[in-house]
Amino acid sequence: MEAFLKEAKAASHTAATLPSAKKNEILRKMAQALREAKGTILEANAEDMRLAEENRLNEALKDRLFLDEKRIEAMATAVEEIAALKEPIGRVLEGWVTEDGLKIEKVTIPIGVIGIIYESRPNVTSDTAALCFKSGNVCVLKGGKEAQHSNEAIASTLRGVLRQESLPESIVSLLPDSSREGVAKLIKQDRYVDLIVPRGGEALIRFVSENATVPVVKHDKGLCHTYIDKDADLDKAVAIAINAKVQRPGVCNAMETLLVDRAIADKVLPRLKEAFDAAGTELRACDATREIIDAEAASESDFDTEYLANILSIKTVEGVDEAIAHIRRYGSGHSEAIVTENHTTAERFLDAIDAAAVYLNASTRFTDGGAFGFGAEVGISTNKLHARGPMGIEGLTTYKFKIYGNGQVRK
Amino acid sequence: MEAFLKEAKAASHTAATLPSAKKNEILRKMAQALREAKGTILEANAEDMRLAEENRLNEALKDRLFLDEKRIEAMATAVEEIAALKEPIGRVLEGWVTEDGLKIEKVTIPIGVIGIIYESRPNVTSDTAALCFKSGNVCVLKGGKEAQHSNEAIASTLRGVLRQESLPESIVSLLPDSSREGVAKLIKQDRYVDLIVPRGGEALIRFVSENATVPVVKHDKGLCHTYIDKDADLDKAVAIAINAKVQRPGVCNAMETLLVDRAIADKVLPRLKEAFDAAGTELRACDATREIIDAEAASESDFDTEYLANILSIKTVEGVDEAIAHIRRYGSGHSEAIVTENHTTAERFLDAIDAAAVYLNASTRFTDGGAFGFGAEVGISTNKLHARGPMGIEGLTTYKFKIYGNGQVRK
Repeated sequence: MEAFLKEAKAASHTAATLPSAKKNEILRKMAQALREAKGTILEANAEDMRLAEENRLNEALKDRLFLDEKRIEAMATAVEEIAALKEPIGRVLEGWVTEDGLKIEKVTIPIGVIGIIYESRPNVTSDTAALCFKSGNVCVLKGGKEAQHSNEAIASTLRGVLRQESLPESIVSLLPDSSREGVAKLIKQDRYVDLIVPRGGEALIRFVSENATVPVVKHDKGLCHTYIDKDADLDKAVAIAINAKVQRPGVCNAMETLLVDRAIADKVLPRLKEAFDAAGTELRACDATREIIDAEAASESDFDTEYLANILSIKTVEGVDEAIAHIRRYGSGHSEAIVTENHTTAERFLDAIDAAAVYLNASTRFTDGGAFGFGAEVGISTNKLHARGPMGIEGLTTYKFKIYGNGQVRK
Repeated sequence: MEAFLKEAKAASHTAATLPSAKKNEILRKMAQALREAKGTILEANAEDMRLAEENRLNEALKDRLFLDEKRIEAMATAVEEIAALKEPIGRVLEGWVTEDGLKIEKVTIPIGVIGIIYESRPNVTSDTAALCFKSGNVCVLKGGKEAQHSNEAIASTLRGVLRQESLPESIVSLLPDSSREGVAKLIKQDRYVDLIVPRGGEALIRFVSENATVPVVKHDKGLCHTYIDKDADLDKAVAIAINAKVQRPGVCNAMETLLVDRAIADKVLPRLKEAFDAAGTELRACDATREIIDAEAASESDFDTEYLANILSIKTVEGVDEAIAHIRRYGSGHSEAIVTENHTTAERFLDAIDAAAVYLNASTRFTDGGAFGFGAEVGISTNKLHARGPMGIEGLTTYKFKIYGNGQVRK
């Protein structure tokens, strides 16, 4: 493992200083190589699918694992789109001159070696490798065991292009030991690895956070709320609440709990009930809510649960302050929304809530790189530091200070 | 511990949303309170000094621990200077409108609860508390045992002002259990603590990095190099090398190793030898260097040592590429300098070296918040992420996205 990572670290010096035009040319060649290798990749994927049958994986997992010509074409196109992104390295974030006459520039640079741990979908392999390469980083990929053959075929296609270009193949690496022990070793190699990005179940993320000495950017749960204030436009409120819960219940930016201002509960709850019934949503509500509409009784633990399903907790609150207090207690710091027409109430909520994304009069479902306009997404960080919320390619960069003097010494 | 940190977390909501004018007014009152409490603080410090004598602390430590009226006045002035800094919270870092018509603002916010672990100097207590307060954070301070009485007197003075203003005293807290076990618990409380800043010896920092589940901004070693290129102006080269080594050898941004281009070794080494002899510097050099000047033989481990003393390793290299390779192998990513008049060589070095600060024709001693013009310094981070290099009050902030809609839902 150490020899492998040492090589990755050495390759990171080459990756970091490649000119922009060279990087983009290679990315376009990688896209082409994926198209040309589609036979090999589909064959490898068929083997993974065969094993998936044998191991009785569920249909959702099998769908995520499955590749066909169309999906391979989408992978190639995604790599070309990453090539077309603005160069993320060498951007001057700030620049100034000091009292001593030193000219200081704060400049973006690659992070170095990035370990990425992910599950089933094989397109993550090419997406992530391309994003890391574009940002001058070396990636060490650890995909799911169930996608092993597909991932190997994809990575080996990308490495083939690096080899043709006389670049170190370790710029795109698969972790050689992909067992839990392999991961446990990887996350402690802070001499060689600069960042770990775990994407997957809570257990994996907890394991990585608790054991890593390498910095971690987590992508875990979202327990998101929408608060309907007494000054809300009720048409907007109903549309936003339905969208936040129903449009795609299984994702981290979907709403789990709806908070309703008692002052308008009478008016809005029956309308919500009708809409949620039509969408087949199971409602679990507090006593005050159940005096107005029919619903299961919500337990304390319901308010602490990320359902990731078409189930919704509802609570009646005494205005924006109780809504804030509830979200501070149960929120996961992912995405929180208020629906109101009142400017002062809106700003009170947006300022007081500490979450990656706080919304006024919009669905929490917008929290992602695409909707934010970032072009390509590494994930949605639930970290408070380095990268928070939707993480574009910028999240794969850090900075250094370049200081230009003409002989200055310290007095 | 948990009840204590829960209270700190609760207080962080109050601290985060205080208006700027209120924060500055309180900071000015804190400065005044320090002046008025000087009798109590000096008494507490006298007790620490008595114990220092008893425990035979060395003179350097005792000097760092010692307080007098002048040093208390300096503490008060520092707090006033922090009050005068530009408001760090609520700054809009970026803003744009998405395709869906959402207006997104990326806005600075406090980090939350920050644990700071430091040693001897009692002024760090008031400096850090003031920086955290100004940036809307709660601080949990863990000072050195040797300064316990002084730190308690200072913290209790600051807390007195918070009490008078009807604010939670836990906004400025001292860790109740200041043993190693207390620290071990603190750094695992990621539910309540958002950042740990350890400032101290390598053993402490290693312990914190290896055991923390809370994110850590480290402040540890600097193994800094200066490379004198064949195209250097030799007057600048000698002045910069002497300054980087001799002006204050005991600090992290002092030079430990001097690399000299073989092409000019004949010319520059005798001049350097003369200047370093005059400054009483002990020289340890490679064989090629010792053919030109008198010096001790450097061992492999010398090049890997942060002397923090008036000792210098010297190595002759074959041009900028060997210098870069040497620094990649031995450098700590803190501060690295090249002396040259050649633009292309300079940019090659500045781009290829991955360190917080890379210098052209200036002394590495400039790496600090004051010299960079940051006004106040939290420390010099050796992290690669979040904050890198000199860390001003900005380093105590993170961001969130505020998103303004008018009823948007996801399609």
